[in-house]
Amino acid sequence: MYFFVRTLSRALSLTTMIIAAHGHYTTVPAGLRVFRALQISQMGKPVRSALTISDDEIRASLERGQIRLLNERGTDVMLFSPMASAMGHHFGNALISRHWTEVNNELIRRVCALYPDRFIGVCALPQSPGGSPRESVEELNRCVNEFGFVGCNMNPDPSGGFWTDPPLGSEWWYPLYEALESLDVPAMIHASATCNPAFHTTGSHYLNTDATAFLQLMDSRVFDDFPRLRFVMPHGGGNVPYQSARYRALAIMNKWEPFETFVKRFYFDTTVYSPDAMDMLVKVVGVDNIIFASEMLGGVNAVDPQTGRSFDDNKPCLDAIPWLAEGDRKKIFEENVKKAYPRVGPILERRVKVADAGV
Amino acid sequence: MYFFVRTLSRALSLTTMIIAAHGHYTTVPAGLRVFRALQISQMGKPVRSALTISDDEIRASLERGQIRLLNERGTDVMLFSPMASAMGHHFGNALISRHWTEVNNELIRRVCALYPDRFIGVCALPQSPGGSPRESVEELNRCVNEFGFVGCNMNPDPSGGFWTDPPLGSEWWYPLYEALESLDVPAMIHASATCNPAFHTTGSHYLNTDATAFLQLMDSRVFDDFPRLRFVMPHGGGNVPYQSARYRALAIMNKWEPFETFVKRFYFDTTVYSPDAMDMLVKVVGVDNIIFASEMLGGVNAVDPQTGRSFDDNKPCLDAIPWLAEGDRKKIFEENVKKAYPRVGPILERRVKVADAGV
Repeated sequence: MYFFVRTLSRALSLTTMIIAAHGHYTTVPAGLRVFRALQISQMGKPVRSALTISDDEIRASLERGQIRLLNERGTDVMLFSPMASAMGHHFGNALISRHWTEVNNELIRRVCALYPDRFIGVCALPQSPGGSPRESVEELNRCVNEFGFVGCNMNPDPSGGFWTDPPLGSEWWYPLYEALESLDVPAMIHASATCNPAFHTTGSHYLNTDATAFLQLMDSRVFDDFPRLRFVMPHGGGNVPYQSARYRALAIMNKWEPFETFVKRFYFDTTVYSPDAMDMLVKVVGVDNIIFASEMLGGVNAVDPQTGRSFDDNKPCLDAIPWLAEGDRKKIFEENVKKAYPRVGPILERRVKVADAGV
Repeated sequence: MYFFVRTLSRALSLTTMIIAAHGHYTTVPAGLRVFRALQISQMGKPVRSALTISDDEIRASLERGQIRLLNERGTDVMLFSPMASAMGHHFGNALISRHWTEVNNELIRRVCALYPDRFIGVCALPQSPGGSPRESVEELNRCVNEFGFVGCNMNPDPSGGFWTDPPLGSEWWYPLYEALESLDVPAMIHASATCNPAFHTTGSHYLNTDATAFLQLMDSRVFDDFPRLRFVMPHGGGNVPYQSARYRALAIMNKWEPFETFVKRFYFDTTVYSPDAMDMLVKVVGVDNIIFASEMLGGVNAVDPQTGRSFDDNKPCLDAIPWLAEGDRKKIFEENVKKAYPRVGPILERRVKVADAGV
């Protein structure tokens, strides 16, 4: 009821809808871990074992976790994808990765069916080190066309920290880019776990991956060849806003597209957790290319002793920026995500119609 | 004469001395490149071929480059080390790397002998993938004890972007840490070139390396075991100030030393090139742990169209911070570098005595 009233009033533009664009199903029922554990003992001959998770288990896993926090923090809808670190594309081989990705995406589909008002699906891709991105197209199509998902997460380093695949500027990736353009869905550039002890998964590996991908694309013809391609950059862009002057200089020195226009090829999410970082992020990237997200429950699952709030309860960092106009806030919380993920708007409108008919 | 008057007045604390803590000999005479080129054809049986560079060639290479800019920008002294990217520790084998490192360090020694008032030496280490850091100790000792150098650059990834060596928290690195503590010199954590096409050397690879090393040390006992060890973090710390809330959260979640005290184990240089980034850097790290540097001539060799100044002419970014007191500025430009590199102070004092005697 709470949500119904909000959805209706927000759809009528009475208030801004709050959409969080980056959430992973980190609270999965144990049945999914059982599936994964069995993959190890079946590495020699990969099979798709049965996944035994009841709807009640799914409900319990979310109502204690993400849904409780969405309600507490006043977030209406979350774009929801499989666990990022647990995708572990480095593990096993392409078939193992395919089975694992499929069950994860199917579980997200069930979540979205159980809570159609709160979650919109984003899929993982069945990537594997050395495997062509072409082999992810079928699963992307299935998730978008059959499951109603609105985008995908794309890992630029399936090796998990050894960076053995071609950079994102290589034509190696083009079959996937063609599919993304053709479906009109974006890819969030998101690492999975590292199996290289040099890195920390949610610390250096995630953030390095963001910056690495950004520079791979700067040093490429990708946006010449795919002018309608859109990427979402998580974690506030790793180091991009802070090091923007270095990127600006590199663009000049290398005769790349100027940083100021290149950065608009991306939508940056707001998963940084201090007011100063948020201010810098919005300033450097610009209000038209920022989409709200908290990555809840994600990498920073702790209470900030300085504020008494959870680190990932980061909407107050945006609320605190004094120079944002009301229209800017509506862009960040609602409108930009509909531009980045064009399939989001029609889904929300359909829901409002259903709710309306129910009145 | 210009320099003599400045040195004297600054040593008498009449003004603040401006010391730039991070400069590489990027303008080397061609003779050094000849040496390097010959190493390729002699890979099977590494030899130390003769290095033919005259003093006049050294003078020309510097007076057109670094010295001209030091004068133009009012910088008194620069800590000067071999080219970072050109060290290429990934290339060849340990003996090739040793020969190359030795000639580079010897060239820096000649620079410091020719311009004792302007340059203070910092050495490269003869690292090689899989080679024990113990094998760098002899060259470190030679450079500090025989050449009068004040510190070293240390590459946490000699593989050049494949990250195949143990992380900095591993005891693998301890023999080098022992030598650093015993000599009371710091190591600047600095990558060399990448041979992995996933990365851009002065873009993603340098910045990722800073963040990676910071997290490797957070997740370690290194400062328990070496409480007097000091590291210098270049490039404004990669992403550390911008992502400080994530690091704070990770420290809490993992029961590591709190970020707020851990960050004080490092001296961060100021090689960021925008006023906003500089402000964030000084605020997050604190004025006692910031040392001025421009990395001139380095990775950002271009004019900023927004200011008309070279990007790496970054002292104005510090000058623009309104909340820095005069004493804070003296720390950043002069005093902190003497704490980070304790051998710098005595070298400058000796020079003043010599100058004084000359009056």
